[in-house]
Amino acid sequence: MLLPDELDRLRVVLVATRNPLNLGAAARAMSNFGFLRLRVVNPYEVAFREARSAVGAPELLTSAEEYKSVAEAVADCTLVVGTTAVRHRELQHPLRLLEEGAGIIRAHLSSRTAASETTGPGITRSGAGDLETTNQGRRVALLFGSEKRGLSNHDLSHCHWLLRIPTREEHISMNMGQAVAVCLYELIRNAQTGDPAQQPVELNLATAGELERITTLLLEALHASGYLDPRTAVAGEDKIRRLVRRLNLPAADAELWLGMLRQIAWKLRGSSGDH
Amino acid sequence: MLLPDELDRLRVVLVATRNPLNLGAAARAMSNFGFLRLRVVNPYEVAFREARSAVGAPELLTSAEEYKSVAEAVADCTLVVGTTAVRHRELQHPLRLLEEGAGIIRAHLSSRTAASETTGPGITRSGAGDLETTNQGRRVALLFGSEKRGLSNHDLSHCHWLLRIPTREEHISMNMGQAVAVCLYELIRNAQTGDPAQQPVELNLATAGELERITTLLLEALHASGYLDPRTAVAGEDKIRRLVRRLNLPAADAELWLGMLRQIAWKLRGSSGDH
Repeated sequence: MLLPDELDRLRVVLVATRNPLNLGAAARAMSNFGFLRLRVVNPYEVAFREARSAVGAPELLTSAEEYKSVAEAVADCTLVVGTTAVRHRELQHPLRLLEEGAGIIRAHLSSRTAASETTGPGITRSGAGDLETTNQGRRVALLFGSEKRGLSNHDLSHCHWLLRIPTREEHISMNMGQAVAVCLYELIRNAQTGDPAQQPVELNLATAGELERITTLLLEALHASGYLDPRTAVAGEDKIRRLVRRLNLPAADAELWLGMLRQIAWKLRGSSGDH
Repeated sequence: MLLPDELDRLRVVLVATRNPLNLGAAARAMSNFGFLRLRVVNPYEVAFREARSAVGAPELLTSAEEYKSVAEAVADCTLVVGTTAVRHRELQHPLRLLEEGAGIIRAHLSSRTAASETTGPGITRSGAGDLETTNQGRRVALLFGSEKRGLSNHDLSHCHWLLRIPTREEHISMNMGQAVAVCLYELIRNAQTGDPAQQPVELNLATAGELERITTLLLEALHASGYLDPRTAVAGEDKIRRLVRRLNLPAADAELWLGMLRQIAWKLRGSSGDH
């Protein structure tokens, strides 16, 4: 059974939504199933205003948080999952069917395996930011793409893995509001039967924000070293971003990797200047 | 797993639907999950016409069967199930949670227990209509009410039992299109779990040899960049070695990491020489 503060750890993230009705429908399904934290990334402004001011708009829609990029919207999350209708996007990501994936998300949301229990204050570094992160525990971001094109490869590069609803081959793509409803239903479905104590305790993982800082420094080092070709940099950068997400980086190691990469990037900057 | 002719035994029955968008959404979810038989009872005529003629309307909407009453719409079905958001409608009907109810519906749709197997041609009466009915086997009607009032007590009186989606107390009532999507998903959910082709491929991890080559290059880069203090190098190196092992590096990514580190280390060696 998902407890209120476990439900509260899920962020439904709608990326580049165009249709106010879909925004409203997503918010309604969230309210039906008890997930009240909505984030929107670059919504079509008119649609967002319209959806917020619609009669009977759920409170969670009026209090939705707005972001300029997927990176910012998932920065405080330790598990980032993208939804996709595509079956074989040249699979750079593990693809899980909804039922299996929901089990992993539920285990991640569970209080009983929370980060704050395994990382004491003595272990955290001096910065206030570090302390805050551990106290917030685990958060999961569940991403839904725009009606037309779904999530872009760049959006997906921020995800640890992808979730697929088992629609049939002849009509794969779902309406967004319905996809949100089905995914959230699957998350709460097992409420009575699933025992989180039976789930394997997962590693305490780095947040998406830490992974993105690591990615940025790594990219800097790769550019400075001449590894990345500026002409194909964008595709290359998404590839690197996915590569970093596949590492399953433990939270406790994030600072160390950041420190190493910072030093390497700094040194390479210096050497580039020598030319 | 539901076979095509089992999917074909379900009739989704929309009663007195007012909103063309909801008609379209219900039809879309049906198409997504492979249930192609739609029946409508007294739809608001304008809405029905509009939904049918909408661009991209699923074929199942244009071929929907129209009825004047619930009685006629469910006449050829052997199991009639109503959906309701209400928890205690002076319960004249058994009320089942979606997960349990879907199991019963699936069993009813199953060919392996179909009526046609238990009723031989010798038993059927002379009329052509009767013959047709027994050959078609069992049919299930799943009823959804209008957006405003749901199913009336009269509609419900045609039902064998009622199905409830486990929404939360504070916001019980679902959007109709989303309710259809969630119910149909629950019906096909179990279908896919046994198919190994749908299962995610388990991560194939990098070998110890690859990890050690990565470690060596990383150490080289860290020395060249000044990150590692030569006086405490041994302890530092072991720490880095453990750090790399904690990454759970996928085998498929090992070459890429080796390539990046090789380039970075090479560049740093060059820059050290400049001093």
